[in-house]
Amino acid sequence: MSVTHAAGFVAAGVEAGLKKSGGKDLALVQNVGPRDAAAVVFTSNRAKANPIIWSQQVIADGRVSAIVLNSGGANCYTGTQGFQVTHATAEAVGEKLGVSPGDVLVCSTGLIGEQLPLDIILAGVKATELSADGGVDASLAIMTTDSKPKRAVVEGTGWSIGGMAKGAGMLAPGLATMLVVITTDADLPSSALDTALRAATRVTFDRLDSDGCMSTNDQVTLLASGASGVVPDPAEFTAAVTAICHDLALQLQADAEGSSHDIAIETINAASEDDAVEVGRSVARNNLFKAAVFGNDPNWGRVLAAVGTTQAEFDPYAIDVSINGVRVCVSGEPGQSRDLVDLTPRAVHVLIDLKSGDSTATIFTNDLTHDYVHENSAYSS
Amino acid sequence: MSVTHAAGFVAAGVEAGLKKSGGKDLALVQNVGPRDAAAVVFTSNRAKANPIIWSQQVIADGRVSAIVLNSGGANCYTGTQGFQVTHATAEAVGEKLGVSPGDVLVCSTGLIGEQLPLDIILAGVKATELSADGGVDASLAIMTTDSKPKRAVVEGTGWSIGGMAKGAGMLAPGLATMLVVITTDADLPSSALDTALRAATRVTFDRLDSDGCMSTNDQVTLLASGASGVVPDPAEFTAAVTAICHDLALQLQADAEGSSHDIAIETINAASEDDAVEVGRSVARNNLFKAAVFGNDPNWGRVLAAVGTTQAEFDPYAIDVSINGVRVCVSGEPGQSRDLVDLTPRAVHVLIDLKSGDSTATIFTNDLTHDYVHENSAYSS
Repeated sequence: MSVTHAAGFVAAGVEAGLKKSGGKDLALVQNVGPRDAAAVVFTSNRAKANPIIWSQQVIADGRVSAIVLNSGGANCYTGTQGFQVTHATAEAVGEKLGVSPGDVLVCSTGLIGEQLPLDIILAGVKATELSADGGVDASLAIMTTDSKPKRAVVEGTGWSIGGMAKGAGMLAPGLATMLVVITTDADLPSSALDTALRAATRVTFDRLDSDGCMSTNDQVTLLASGASGVVPDPAEFTAAVTAICHDLALQLQADAEGSSHDIAIETINAASEDDAVEVGRSVARNNLFKAAVFGNDPNWGRVLAAVGTTQAEFDPYAIDVSINGVRVCVSGEPGQSRDLVDLTPRAVHVLIDLKSGDSTATIFTNDLTHDYVHENSAYSS
Repeated sequence: MSVTHAAGFVAAGVEAGLKKSGGKDLALVQNVGPRDAAAVVFTSNRAKANPIIWSQQVIADGRVSAIVLNSGGANCYTGTQGFQVTHATAEAVGEKLGVSPGDVLVCSTGLIGEQLPLDIILAGVKATELSADGGVDASLAIMTTDSKPKRAVVEGTGWSIGGMAKGAGMLAPGLATMLVVITTDADLPSSALDTALRAATRVTFDRLDSDGCMSTNDQVTLLASGASGVVPDPAEFTAAVTAICHDLALQLQADAEGSSHDIAIETINAASEDDAVEVGRSVARNNLFKAAVFGNDPNWGRVLAAVGTTQAEFDPYAIDVSINGVRVCVSGEPGQSRDLVDLTPRAVHVLIDLKSGDSTATIFTNDLTHDYVHENSAYSS
């Protein structure tokens, strides 16, 4: 399962002692080949954590031997000392595995603005015992406030893909706050991996917007071992990468901090895909709407107030809105009674018909709950 | 006090029966002259309520005789029927006061997507008894979830200004969600009022961003009776209008739904004022930071993560951040201990030094609390 599902990968997850709460907190994944092609998509936040800065250098040549990930600290806004910790971590992995530190990606997650204890990380790296069934342990070691690990697999024609993800808060595009590692035994060069990964993340992780807060540490990594010996059809491969990203993104949404509803905001008949994304994102970030959903209140006026803040092409007196199948707003006027809307299920579907074109996009978000506030206030830290 | 502080104005506030919770819900303010100059700033939301559409026509000639305001319903996304209610309301006021309906502004506030009961409004208009001390009643009648009325006065040189405001949620720029009526006995034409009002709202209401949610009904109205016979110095007048807008904006912030902290985010040494506003706004809309303040947790990493999402000019490795006087981040690295920060007072000051220029702006916001979620979920409606 997880990152060791595809042939050509070994992994481990250990309790190094970084997380105050205890539990596994350091994961290592090695690509044992025969290929070492890779592609990575990074956060678009301009405040980049040290492991992001390091990993951007590593991926420059499209080759990656291993990836090490720690929870218990983001190593962001930690200056020169923080960068040295990242560098030393890659060197320790290189020494342990007999690979170049320059081919080792590093990911960190946790509190911003605190130095990571290097000695604990180095001891943790040494303690890892990589194996072909280490994927589950690795998926456990990257959890922070996650209530459960996130893993997925997809089967191709003669090749396969496996992956793991972590993320429960600070979920917003560019990318959603998370670390994701996807592995495949397909035989593809870095450029092909990059094309498939960007196509996949654009319509999956980039459309997950749990709380509008963009992380400093997001990284989605795709590693290809070539161990299957099969060169996949590009379209099939992109579809498979998209499928596993979609699966993992929905797992992130389902486990979003304190959430009680998973909300899919589908905008149809938009003049462009960008318009549809902008409209969905605006609704997904409207705290009043999100609080209403928490209270099972189909307050569709808040949907329209959010749509009105966008630059998308639409006529306020043509728009339709449906919530869980009830068309509460028809051509900008009250439609079916809001009392017909049942918001007791966890899944909520908001359908916005802009009647301005033929483009569509869906944004995935969560409601705003007492527990979200509680988990993100000091009371829980 | 309030809108009847300046000479030349009479007002009233009555219980028409629009609010399910009871209490005054219809206010009327008349300018008895000798002048009838006015200026209005409207919401920039593209989903405009019917009273906004009506009032935009009324203000076109810069002359206003009266303004009628109701709580208990926003009259937004209510179609042709809703517009007819607004029109009939203005006609009823015109008939009662012997003025042209085309010189009567209308404001509504409350739930979006529900029709207002016209008969109740018409009976309410008839029941008003305007007087020179009716300003307090008027300020009470425009309250929705406000816990207290908002009123302010400023004295000029031989003239004065008074005002009232309502707003407690859906507070965000363009404008903050609110209705505001400001009256003055200064003798100024509509164009001068407009210049002063736009200058004032740009740095006051437009920088109040309690919850990132922009309303469909915002309207800030400035009425001038000329009853003092004094033509004020333009700079003094603009400063006075700015002062009363600032006063009312801080009253809105202090009464924001469920809030436990008033947060001022001051960005200094920005390359431009736009940059400073963008940075402050980004922090003000970061739910994770707002939840941390609720929990008295000085989580400055969330400030920097929010700054990193902007296009503002700054070097992540030069930035300083202080919270309530403690410089927790110096040149992008940990500075003084976060444990020194005391967040128990209601007032919170976040100072962000971008070191990129000499522009400054302050954005006013609130924390994200259990009570905010509660008040905006169905449990409270």
